[in-house]
Amino acid sequence: MHRLIIFFLLLQVFDFCNGGVTSTYIRKSEASIDIPIEYLPPPPGYNSPEQVHITQGDHIGRSVIVSWVTPLESQSNYVTFWAEGAKHHHKHKAHAKTTSYKYYNYTSGYIHHAIIKRLKYNVTYIYQLGEHNSTRTFSFTTPPKVGPDVPYIFGIIGDLGQTFDSNQTLEHYLSNPKGQAMLVVGDLSYADHYPFHDNVRWDTFGRFIEKSAAYQPWITAAGNHELDFAPEIGENTPFKPYTHRYHVPYKASQSTSPLWYSIKRASTYIIVLSSYSAYGKYTPQYSWLEEEFPKVNRTETPWLIVLLHSPWYNSNNYHYMEGESMRVMFESWFVQNKVDMVFAGHVHSYERSERVSNVMYNITNGQSTPIEDPSAPIYITIGDGGNIEGIANNFTEPQPSYSAYREASFGHAVLEIKNRTHAYYTWHRNQDSERVAADSLWIYNRHWYPKKESSSMA
Amino acid sequence: MHRLIIFFLLLQVFDFCNGGVTSTYIRKSEASIDIPIEYLPPPPGYNSPEQVHITQGDHIGRSVIVSWVTPLESQSNYVTFWAEGAKHHHKHKAHAKTTSYKYYNYTSGYIHHAIIKRLKYNVTYIYQLGEHNSTRTFSFTTPPKVGPDVPYIFGIIGDLGQTFDSNQTLEHYLSNPKGQAMLVVGDLSYADHYPFHDNVRWDTFGRFIEKSAAYQPWITAAGNHELDFAPEIGENTPFKPYTHRYHVPYKASQSTSPLWYSIKRASTYIIVLSSYSAYGKYTPQYSWLEEEFPKVNRTETPWLIVLLHSPWYNSNNYHYMEGESMRVMFESWFVQNKVDMVFAGHVHSYERSERVSNVMYNITNGQSTPIEDPSAPIYITIGDGGNIEGIANNFTEPQPSYSAYREASFGHAVLEIKNRTHAYYTWHRNQDSERVAADSLWIYNRHWYPKKESSSMA
Repeated sequence: MHRLIIFFLLLQVFDFCNGGVTSTYIRKSEASIDIPIEYLPPPPGYNSPEQVHITQGDHIGRSVIVSWVTPLESQSNYVTFWAEGAKHHHKHKAHAKTTSYKYYNYTSGYIHHAIIKRLKYNVTYIYQLGEHNSTRTFSFTTPPKVGPDVPYIFGIIGDLGQTFDSNQTLEHYLSNPKGQAMLVVGDLSYADHYPFHDNVRWDTFGRFIEKSAAYQPWITAAGNHELDFAPEIGENTPFKPYTHRYHVPYKASQSTSPLWYSIKRASTYIIVLSSYSAYGKYTPQYSWLEEEFPKVNRTETPWLIVLLHSPWYNSNNYHYMEGESMRVMFESWFVQNKVDMVFAGHVHSYERSERVSNVMYNITNGQSTPIEDPSAPIYITIGDGGNIEGIANNFTEPQPSYSAYREASFGHAVLEIKNRTHAYYTWHRNQDSERVAADSLWIYNRHWYPKKESSSMA
Repeated sequence: MHRLIIFFLLLQVFDFCNGGVTSTYIRKSEASIDIPIEYLPPPPGYNSPEQVHITQGDHIGRSVIVSWVTPLESQSNYVTFWAEGAKHHHKHKAHAKTTSYKYYNYTSGYIHHAIIKRLKYNVTYIYQLGEHNSTRTFSFTTPPKVGPDVPYIFGIIGDLGQTFDSNQTLEHYLSNPKGQAMLVVGDLSYADHYPFHDNVRWDTFGRFIEKSAAYQPWITAAGNHELDFAPEIGENTPFKPYTHRYHVPYKASQSTSPLWYSIKRASTYIIVLSSYSAYGKYTPQYSWLEEEFPKVNRTETPWLIVLLHSPWYNSNNYHYMEGESMRVMFESWFVQNKVDMVFAGHVHSYERSERVSNVMYNITNGQSTPIEDPSAPIYITIGDGGNIEGIANNFTEPQPSYSAYREASFGHAVLEIKNRTHAYYTWHRNQDSERVAADSLWIYNRHWYPKKESSSMA
């Protein structure tokens, strides 16, 4: 029954003009409106911990960074945690480092980041923040031990924002109980949409995502809306709110900046890059990435995934070719190292590429057209989280051959890794019920099973 | 007589295989050896000011930044100055801001930067640093008031280093009394060539260049050897030694970083960019440059010149295509705004391009070959200052059509701006006497007289 629905949907949306598919699905165009602040209040109780979110805290998945904000006092800057079902005396504490920042006329609350270390794999932990009647309780499950055939399920979301559409996207993801960790390809709060980048909207965003981010790690990449670069109001330090609020385990991968880092999780090796930092040769990010690829052991982690914000293969007029500058720098490494998938955001629609590369160009030979390449990644543009800027409904025509499927709808994706060779990838538009996949593909691992994938049509 | 020598030299070096010229001049290959430290001692006297250098201190040329180091104490952190020939009571003082830094196991001296403001145009000023018997006296001449037909003569130097070759380059430039200011396209000291980036070599470099840089402004761009990024020894802050030692008037052009800025000087508008900072869309450097071009008034400053380190049009195998990532980002702006000349370094040889652009490419059209374009800059690669890494004697073959002249020799260039329409450009290889130009061209201003230039052959 489920498959039948997908089949009819596919029939409806296919465009046979060329190899790729431009979905003709018509999304009812609605105003993108942020959820009002009063709908995103702080939790009740004195100095209650709020904006709780977690991420992986080390390179291998045995640590968790718990982050939260207390608005009034910096006290209670620790997290209490225990394995589910454990006796009371097995409760532990991890103390946080507490920071805060000013941004123009805004002063943040006390932002706490605690690293819980030496957890067991594949265990559900309960954790508590706050004191007395303001105590709040959450839980997370550690991933299985890193290994080549460990199944794992990621959600993927980009350019989320905090509109009613954003909420639909997040609820849609949450309605699928299988997602174990979220890959976030940048552009989180869109606070910079407000006068003086009103950082209260960083707070409301933190409250909005808590229902997911407090319970499973959000693996974040930085987008342009994380820059918060506003020299006109004296804010000259790029990424100030983001780097204060969202900590990542960058030192565990020998990075010198939270804007690029890597983690291993289950059977995946995830590399996070920054489209808005320097990536020229010799720069810190370049040097780091150059040393990073040789560290990837596909026998340990068969799946090599990259997150970055500005897509390299995008056929929407919106932000067209913005990723060229970074592609020119790094694409050959991605192909040489057989990256399986690259997830990007930035463009507020959905697109999946064929496996293509464009690395032959040498200035004089004219060979600058993307070509089919079994060693190349599949590029997914998934900036369709639903933020306040609305949908990007203006594709280039004709659809270029590198584009396999594209659709101007909001949604999220799910990547179900089955074993070292197979993963099942699905994209879910907000208007459909959770079980429907508007785009889907069996992905074959580039190291272990570099077979050509059949598009969902075949 | 002089012209005759040039003519015979040209006959000797031309290669008629294609449109461009690859000089067959054979430079005797010598070991590149840094001048020993003991040859570059500090000046005599207690706590003598040393490593004196100046640069423009505002946007229009009426201020000068004087920078120097005192090794032992931070006292005497002011500069005394007066117009040449002025009476004693017309002496003035400008106080410095003093800084210092640590780099691994090195601690710098006291680094002083004083801004002398509200100078008169076209006046020679005497200035003194230090006290008692350690007093040292220098002088500089302010430029003429900014205006469209103001003649001015720049030296251009890149990748200088501090070898005996470097000294030959600098002496060669100094033997020409006409040079009024130096454009420096990055890679200064090569201190990072030494274990732990021995910053003593930043000091010896400062002593080495003083004979020029204390007397005329060095307008500096940052190169990769300014990065001094060395996480293996805990040095994670890019550009630390450079930004402590070489101040520039970046705030005067609304820049938020000393790594990109602009100045007006005589009839020129000079934009300095950073190849090793972020230049993606939305980044600080990108946003700054986007707002910078509309500020250029060619009626006031006809000549628009860009300095950056990593060349966009280079046909040497050494660093081939490294500049592509930045070119992809900014080239269309350069063409739209009719930049006259772009000076770059990085490649340790000399190359002059035709006026070409490569801005038609749209991913699918295959139009990725540089084409002749009268609105495009001439690109000069002049990383041939003579540093310790030696010459880059390995050109791509055949010579691409965008390359007009190339030669693997050390040297420097001179740009003589005559008026709003004409400038005479010459490149001087170290082995020739000062009056010989191994490459030369009348440059026609792109705004006022966008005529095709004849190569030196015509």
